[in-house]
Amino acid sequence: MQIKSLADLLRVARAAKPQKIAVAAAQDAEVLKAVTHAKSEGIADAILVGDETKISGIANEIGIDLSQFEIIHEPQTQKAASRAVEMVRNGEAGVLMKGLIGTSDILRAVLDKEKGLRTGRLLSHVTVINGPVGQERVVLVTDVAMNIQPDLIQKKGLIENAAQVARVLGIAEPKVAIIAAVENVNPDMQATIDAALLAKMGDRKQIKGVKIDGPLALDNAVSLEAATHKGIQSEVAGQADILVMPDIEAGNVFYKSIVYFAGGAVAGMIVGAAAPVILTSRADSPQSKLYSIALGVIAAGQC
Amino acid sequence: MQIKSLADLLRVARAAKPQKIAVAAAQDAEVLKAVTHAKSEGIADAILVGDETKISGIANEIGIDLSQFEIIHEPQTQKAASRAVEMVRNGEAGVLMKGLIGTSDILRAVLDKEKGLRTGRLLSHVTVINGPVGQERVVLVTDVAMNIQPDLIQKKGLIENAAQVARVLGIAEPKVAIIAAVENVNPDMQATIDAALLAKMGDRKQIKGVKIDGPLALDNAVSLEAATHKGIQSEVAGQADILVMPDIEAGNVFYKSIVYFAGGAVAGMIVGAAAPVILTSRADSPQSKLYSIALGVIAAGQC
Repeated sequence: MQIKSLADLLRVARAAKPQKIAVAAAQDAEVLKAVTHAKSEGIADAILVGDETKISGIANEIGIDLSQFEIIHEPQTQKAASRAVEMVRNGEAGVLMKGLIGTSDILRAVLDKEKGLRTGRLLSHVTVINGPVGQERVVLVTDVAMNIQPDLIQKKGLIENAAQVARVLGIAEPKVAIIAAVENVNPDMQATIDAALLAKMGDRKQIKGVKIDGPLALDNAVSLEAATHKGIQSEVAGQADILVMPDIEAGNVFYKSIVYFAGGAVAGMIVGAAAPVILTSRADSPQSKLYSIALGVIAAGQC
Repeated sequence: MQIKSLADLLRVARAAKPQKIAVAAAQDAEVLKAVTHAKSEGIADAILVGDETKISGIANEIGIDLSQFEIIHEPQTQKAASRAVEMVRNGEAGVLMKGLIGTSDILRAVLDKEKGLRTGRLLSHVTVINGPVGQERVVLVTDVAMNIQPDLIQKKGLIENAAQVARVLGIAEPKVAIIAAVENVNPDMQATIDAALLAKMGDRKQIKGVKIDGPLALDNAVSLEAATHKGIQSEVAGQADILVMPDIEAGNVFYKSIVYFAGGAVAGMIVGAAAPVILTSRADSPQSKLYSIALGVIAAGQC
C-alpha cells in the first residue's frame, strides 16, 4: 500500500508486524501519553526503561494504567538509554524512543562503538508531511532537526536515508528535489551549487534508486503549475517526493511553518541507525506524536 | 487602524490617499490584469509605461479597457523603467511596479545615481502574511527574495526597513524575532550568533523603535505556548510582528510554504528606495497581487 496521507501511516502500522518500542528514560508524562495512545490505537507496544518510581508517580497523576507495559527499572538516565539500545540490538524491541533524556545523550548510546546501533551510515532526521494543498500524497523532508550545515557527501547521505523511508512508504523510485531559493545555478548561492552537483550525481548513478533534480525552489518542486510557469523541464519538478533542504535553518523553518501556519501534523524519526529512533518534542501535537510512532513502526526492520 | 489581516490591507488602501502606480514595461498580461483589478477595487490608478502596441494587443486579448489608464509609449524596456522611475521621482506616481522586465533591470533604474530612487538605505524585500493558525494578526517576514546571505549590518537594515512597514500597518513598536533553527546561542550556527548580536544591538538602541530578541526558532517566535514550553523569558517570543530569516533559503522556503502548504495569500514589496517597488511574480495568485498593490499604496510616501 502506498501511503497517501499521514492518516494512512496509522492504517499501515496497524496492519504491520507488531513492534515493541524501547523507551529510554520513560519518566516523561508526554511520552507516556504517546505510547499509551499508540497502544490503544493498536499500533505498537512499549517497554518502559527508566525510573520506575517516577514512572508510576506520573502514570498515577495522568491516569495511565501501567500494567499494560513492561517496565525495566533503571533510574540513571544514561544507563537507561544504554539498556533501551541494548533491547533494540537484541531484537527485544524494534524501535527506540527518547524519553526524559537529552537528544545528544540518547544519540551517544546509539552511536556507542561496541554496544550501539551503528551502521556506518549517516544519522539524519526525516520528516513526513501531507502534501501541498490539493495534492493527496505525502512529502518527505530532510533534514529539519539534526544535520546543521550538511556538506555534499552528507547531503548524499540525507538523500539515501530519506529514499529508504520513501520506499517503505510505497514510493518505489522517489523523486528528490534539492531545494534552494531559486532554480538556476548561481555561483553566489552554495545551495544551488550543491543542488546541481547532487542532480548530476543522480544522473551518474552515484546515488541509486532515485531521480534527483535541483536546484529547485519549493514552489517548482511541488507544483507542476509553478514548474511549467518557469519552463522547467524535469522529471522531478512539480512532483517531488523528497525535499532536501539546504541547511537546518531552512528545514526547521519549513517544518514549523507546516505546524503553525498550515495547521498540519508531522511525523518524524532519525534514520541511519540499526533501528528507527523516535524523538518527539513536547511541542508536538498528540496527533503528530502518534504519527511519528506509526512511522517508526512501519520503518522498523527496513530502515 | 491597525492591520489585522491581509484583507484589511484593501480596506486601508481604499481609504488612503489615492496613488498612481507607474508600471515599468507594462506589456504583460498578468500585470495588466492586476492593475485593472486594483483599479476596479478602488485601490489605485496606474500609468502604463511600455510598448503601446503590445499593451493594446494584450488588453484586447484579455478584455481590458485601456481607456481608463494613462499610457506612455516607450518600447525599449530599460528606457521604460527609467521613465517609470522618473515619474515616481517627480511625484507623478507614488509607487513603482515591475512589468515585463527583469528584476535586476528595474533595480538598475531604481539605483541609478543621478536619476534613480536611492535613499542610502539598504534595499530589501518585505512580505506580509496572515499570522499563525488561530491568531488574528499579520506577520512581516524578511528577506524572502532579495538579499541572499545578509551580514550583520545588512540584517540591521532588514530590520529597519521591515519596522518602517510595520509602523505604517499600525504596529507602533514592532517586536522583532531573529529566526534560527534553535533558540540557544550555538557557536556552530552563524544564524544564532547574528541573532544574539542583533538582540543586543536592540537593547543598546543601536536599532531604534523596535524590540528585538533572538535566536528564536519559528515556533517560539510566534506561539506563546511553544515559548512557554521552552521556558523562554522574552517580550518578543510568541508574539513577534517581524520575522527576520537567517538567509534567503530559509526565507524563500517559508514564503512558499505559506502559499503551497498553508494555502495562504501573501503581500510583498521592496523597501528602501524613495518609493515602494512592487514585484509580483507570475505564480502569485490574483489575490496576492492585489494585496501587494494595496501594501504598496499604503506604504507610499511613508516607506
